[in-house]
This record gives sequence, structure tokens and C-alpha cells, in this order.
Amino acid sequence: MNIQEIIAKKRDKKELSKEEIDYFVREYTNGSITDYQASALVMAIYINGMNDMEITNLTLAMAHSGDILDLSELGEIIDKHSTGGVGDKITLILMPIIASLGIPVAKMSGRGLGFTGGTIDKLESIPGYNTNITTEKFIENVKNIGISLMGQTLNLAPADKKLYALRDVISCVDSIPLIASSIMSKKIAAGANKIVIDVTCGSGAFMKTREDAEKLAQIMTSIGNLANKETVCVITNMDEPVGYAVGNTLEVIEAVDILKNKYMPEDIKNIIEELGGNMLVLAKKVNNIEDGKKLIIENIKNGKAYSKLLELVKNQGGDFSYIEDTNKFEKAKFICPIISKQNGKITRIDALKVGELSCYLGAGRQKKEDSINPKVGFIFNKKVGDIVEKDEVIGYVHADDEDKAKYVLEQDVVETK
Amino acid sequence: MNIQEIIAKKRDKKELSKEEIDYFVREYTNGSITDYQASALVMAIYINGMNDMEITNLTLAMAHSGDILDLSELGEIIDKHSTGGVGDKITLILMPIIASLGIPVAKMSGRGLGFTGGTIDKLESIPGYNTNITTEKFIENVKNIGISLMGQTLNLAPADKKLYALRDVISCVDSIPLIASSIMSKKIAAGANKIVIDVTCGSGAFMKTREDAEKLAQIMTSIGNLANKETVCVITNMDEPVGYAVGNTLEVIEAVDILKNKYMPEDIKNIIEELGGNMLVLAKKVNNIEDGKKLIIENIKNGKAYSKLLELVKNQGGDFSYIEDTNKFEKAKFICPIISKQNGKITRIDALKVGELSCYLGAGRQKKEDSINPKVGFIFNKKVGDIVEKDEVIGYVHADDEDKAKYVLEQDVVETK
Repeated sequence: MNIQEIIAKKRDKKELSKEEIDYFVREYTNGSITDYQASALVMAIYINGMNDMEITNLTLAMAHSGDILDLSELGEIIDKHSTGGVGDKITLILMPIIASLGIPVAKMSGRGLGFTGGTIDKLESIPGYNTNITTEKFIENVKNIGISLMGQTLNLAPADKKLYALRDVISCVDSIPLIASSIMSKKIAAGANKIVIDVTCGSGAFMKTREDAEKLAQIMTSIGNLANKETVCVITNMDEPVGYAVGNTLEVIEAVDILKNKYMPEDIKNIIEELGGNMLVLAKKVNNIEDGKKLIIENIKNGKAYSKLLELVKNQGGDFSYIEDTNKFEKAKFICPIISKQNGKITRIDALKVGELSCYLGAGRQKKEDSINPKVGFIFNKKVGDIVEKDEVIGYVHADDEDKAKYVLEQDVVETK
Repeated sequence: MNIQEIIAKKRDKKELSKEEIDYFVREYTNGSITDYQASALVMAIYINGMNDMEITNLTLAMAHSGDILDLSELGEIIDKHSTGGVGDKITLILMPIIASLGIPVAKMSGRGLGFTGGTIDKLESIPGYNTNITTEKFIENVKNIGISLMGQTLNLAPADKKLYALRDVISCVDSIPLIASSIMSKKIAAGANKIVIDVTCGSGAFMKTREDAEKLAQIMTSIGNLANKETVCVITNMDEPVGYAVGNTLEVIEAVDILKNKYMPEDIKNIIEELGGNMLVLAKKVNNIEDGKKLIIENIKNGKAYSKLLELVKNQGGDFSYIEDTNKFEKAKFICPIISKQNGKITRIDALKVGELSCYLGAGRQKKEDSINPKVGFIFNKKVGDIVEKDEVIGYVHADDEDKAKYVLEQDVVETK
């Protein structure tokens, strides 16, 4: 077997065998296949596509290119993933709910890159919360309290890391087969048995159209089934930010407030019902999604989910007084109101722009090595469809730099008609 | 402008502008664009193609990536090129003919790689012939005697060299737009005003089918016209070797014998008539190809072409006594007859096999750094269509190694039915 023959096959739109895909992933990971050869193959895959079997084989080969987290002693683990969005704090809300219903939650999360945030960055804005624990401690935590959320300390799917970095510099990121295999390889390496995926769709997501989101969902479901990891995909809207808050601390506060049952944004309710309902069906806790949805909301209302969050934070070394009183969180220096210029109805809160501007304020990373500022971001008072009056405050920009705040306020992220 | 946008455009089957192609060629040549990025773009070009304007711009950008030979003081130079074949000694025969007709010949030729030979390797089998002269001397030679054949001492089209080496390791050699631009860039850099190209077609050529050869011919003609270098392509058969001899010294001897008017293989007659006729039309020496063909054959018969060859060899330091008496050329150690196994008609002399076996005997290079053995190769007594009897000698293998000779004799390069 040699890489040139493999490249030529995909170049000519032929199907690659499992052996050929395994060979490519193995030899690329160990450096025997060069970046320029991988690059040619990736471009051929981008243009000529892959069938479900090829994508599954690519996923499995990448999943097995590094460590595989063995969670078997915890029973069946149902993982949850989102393809990324702006203001997406669903993990922080949903996972304590799931754990409070007696389903074990053992979740490794990533850091944010670009305009989408990462759960680990959000958790680290809680003083003391340790995302960098051993996998033994991680498993022990789940055994003791039913939940642990940590960062990716293991060498999970290094082939995917290497290929992703390459795709990024050769304009091959937005290939559905490559996105699908990238996501699924990490989930499989992270020890999931069953997977629920929030496929975000809209201006603030990787998938801009419903059609692409459906295609990605279909492929990931197929990979899951072929890889013997039952997978359910839920497509959710990402045209406006999720909920009202964007930015690390600000999103933690919103998640806590929701679990405290202070308020519930309609979009978040829909997402946690859909994802949670499916997770409960996969866990055989309920027979149908509707019953699952009821349990999800119930455990917010009865305070059990909030208690579970407190327990999680406490157990991982976090100062839970910040959760009990979110006013303790340090605020950004400048909190500047966004004022409506006219009477009317909000027709658009541009998720992509909000994400990019949050990143500019310091909430996200341009490069992996960048550090982030947990305090900055946006708080909106309104959602798309809401009525506003001229001079009404639509939301606030939270910034640590006055010039940046000014610049952000000059951008029209909210459209009113 | 950045390379990622350029890659994305071609990935999406869009047309690249002249500025984008210039940028790519310039920045790749100077190393600012990496091999893996060039690799992605080349694969996208391979799969999605390029239109004639893009191919022309690529050609011109590559032609101008290094030195450009300025032959303007010689008047109009008509260059001749072949896409390569087995036993192709046409340049050695045709260029002295053209020069003997008063048309200046200033030709830089390459060395052979793989199964096709290079004119420079053949010339160097004449003791003393200096292929490595200065361009001043080269131009002076043409002024004095009307002809000079030398090697590529200048840094001609380095972008093409770099891209070709890359294409070779990523399975992107046989792309018609890339082949066309590669050939034409070198011709333009070598100072040609008008170009006649022998597009070889068949088992011993890069283009295996008539259809591909026609496509390549059409594209090179378009590039020539768009680049203001009038170009004529002639498609010739390369299923069997050209003429009777294959191998460096052996081909020089055949070329000399033909110019001495000792014999004329039918295929060589056709090729030199077609190419030569077109060159004379381009040079405005004649009004139509048929008149040109007559002049070509006439100057063999009247000995003028042979005198011009002698003059060329003498002028470039070669020992012309070898030309006058080709028996002086050193012979290979083993000259072994190829015996017909049956009565019948020769249906095939496999050019590709003959080329590969010549290479194996030492006549060609596997890698650029390899040295070659000028003495080895094949001499056939027959061509396809000839009648043979059982035990008749069809030809000879010339080898310097007995084991290699044996191996070659065991291969069936001639098919009789």
C-alpha cells in the first residue's frame, strides 16, 4: 500500500477501503506521510466526498490514533455534543439536570477557538474549579456524585488534531464528511456509548443552512450506527445567540440563574428539552421524548438540578459561594448600554457578529495559545421578535477596555424594523 | 490576496484571475506558500480543471518565474518540442535539416527522466560535444553556422520544476492543464517565438489515448495563441518505438545514418515531414505544408542536412570523426539477438516495455541524479506490420551486464501473430 495510490483513488472518485484509510491515518499521525500528501488527499476528499462507510472508517481510525478513555466501569455513558454556537451554555445547564435524574455524566469538554466558546473556559471562570484532574479522579467523581466535567487531558484523537490544523490552512474546514468524522472521532475516543448531538444551524454556526445541517446530522447518525454508538442529532437554530448572555462568566451566571429557576429563555427551554428528552430515551429512563422533556423541566423546578450543580462545583474544588451568590463574580470595567435607535420589532441579533465582537473584547481566542478574559461579553435584554421603543436599552456590552467598548457599540448587531 | 482564498476558489470550481495565479506562482517559488498549500491547490486544479485563460496565465507566470532567454537578436526562433517517447531522436535529425534550409535553430534541450530519453544525453554520447556552453556562445554559434543545441544551463521556469516535483509525489502528474502549462512555460522561457509540438500518443507516451492527445494539443495551441507564440501541434503515434534504435549512442547512429541517406524508417519520415513542414510554414519559408515536406526530404537527399550536422558537432567541440564513421562508437559488451518464436506478422512492439527495459539496462534515469550508460539499448530489424519467420532475428539487445541482458531477452516486447 502506498499513499500515492490512495490519493489517486480518491482523486478519481473511488471508494477507499478500511485498510487504506487506516494506513493513511496511522502513517500521517506518525509523520511518515507528509503534510503535502495529506493535503492532496484532503482536498480530493473535500471535492469528491466520501460515502458513509468511508467516513465511519476515517472516524474510527482517528478515534484509535491516540488514547481511548475507558468508562466501562461507569456503565453506559451518554455524551452530549454541540457543533458550536454563540452563547451556548447548554452543557452547564443540561448536564446537572441529567445527573440529577440519576444518569451518570462523565464529560470531557474542549476550550473555545474562534467565535464559539468552550465549556472548559466557562467552568474555569468559577474560582477554584479544577478542570485538570486525573481520569481516575474523574471516574471516582462520577461514581461518588454522578457527574464530572473536565478538560481534555488525554491525547484524544491526535490524528484529528493534526488533520484539523492542516484543513484550517488549506481551506478544507467546511467539508461535511471531515466535520462529521472529526466530531465523532473525539466523542468515541472520549468513551461515549451513546451520543446526542446539537447540530447548530444559522449565521453563528459552522452550518449556515438547514440543508447542510441536515446532511451533517444524517452522516453523524450513520457513523454512530455503523460504529455501534447509537447517535441522535437535534438541529437547533443559531441565527441569534443562545439565551441572553455571551461571554464566559456572564454565561455561567445565566446558567446558574436558569437552574435556580429565576427565568427561562424560550430557545434554551427548547434546546434542553429536545437534547435532554433524547438523552433520557437513550438512557432508557423514559419511553418517549415527551416524557423526557417533562422530567427535564421538573428537575429544574424542584431544585434538584441546581443542587447537582452545587455538588459538582464543590466536588471539583470550585468556590460554590459564587454559585450561591453570582454577584460575587468580578465584573468588567465598562458596562455600556446598547440603545435602540427606533421603535419597532427586533428582526435580527447577528450571532456571528456578536461572537466575533466578544472574541475581539477578549472572551475568545484567535489562536490556541491566546488567554481569555472571563468577564467580557454581551448581555441582551431582548430576543428576536421582541418589541422595543426608541432609546430603550436592548442590552449591555461588558468590556475591560474603553476603546474596544466604543468600537463594539458602533457595530450594529441588533436590527429593528 | 491570500492563498487560502485562492485554494477555496478553485476548490469551488471558480476561475482564478491572472493576479491570483501570478501571486501563487511567485509566492510558491520564493517559499512563502508552503508545499501543503500548493498541494491542495494542485489537487483542486487536477479535479476541477482550468479554462484556457487560466492555463495561459499559469504558463506565463511559470515562464517568468526565472530566467528568460532573449534570442531576439537572432530574429524569429521556431522551437520544436516533443511530449516524449521511446526512440525519439527526431530533434537530432530534424534540426540540422531546418538549419540547412536557412532557418536559425537555437534549441535548449533537457535530459531524460524515466523511460523517455533526452536529446542532451544523446548529444553527450558524441565524444567532446559540449552541451554546457554559455548563452553568449550559444547565440554566437547560431549567428555563425545557423544552429546550436545545448543543455538547460539557465534557471528556466523554476516554478515549473518545483511544481512538477510536487505533482510527482501527490499523484497529480497526468493532468492535461498542468502538463500543457509545464511544457509551454519552458518553451517560452527558452526564448521561442513560434513552437511546433509533437504530441506523442500511445503506450510509450504520457498521453495514452488519441482523445487525450487531441485535448492536450488543443490546449497548447490555445495557450500559444493567447501568449502570442504561434503554436502548431502534430499528433504522432507512440505505440512502437520511433525508428529502429533505442538508447543514446544507438539513436545517434540511427540519426546520422538517416541524414547520410542510408535508410529512412517510414514513421520517422512521417514525423519529420509533418513537424518540419509546419516549421517551414511558420518560418514563412513555404506557403503550405506539402511544399515544406518536399524541402525536408530534399535536404536529406542532397546531403546538406548531413553537412549541417557535421558543422554543428564540430562547432560544439565534438569529435566529428565519430559522425563520419559511426563504427568508432564504443559498443556494449553483450549484443544478444532477439529471436522470433514463430512465423507470422509483427502486431506489436511495446514502446512502454522497450522504454522501461532500456532504462533498466542503464540507458535512462530513475532519478535525476542517476548517471546513464550511453551504449545500451535495443536495435530492431523490424517494425509493426513486418512479416517474420520462426528463428529469424527481430532485433538485438545491447547490454553491459549479462544478467540484465538475459532478463530483458525473457521479456516479450515483440508480439507476433
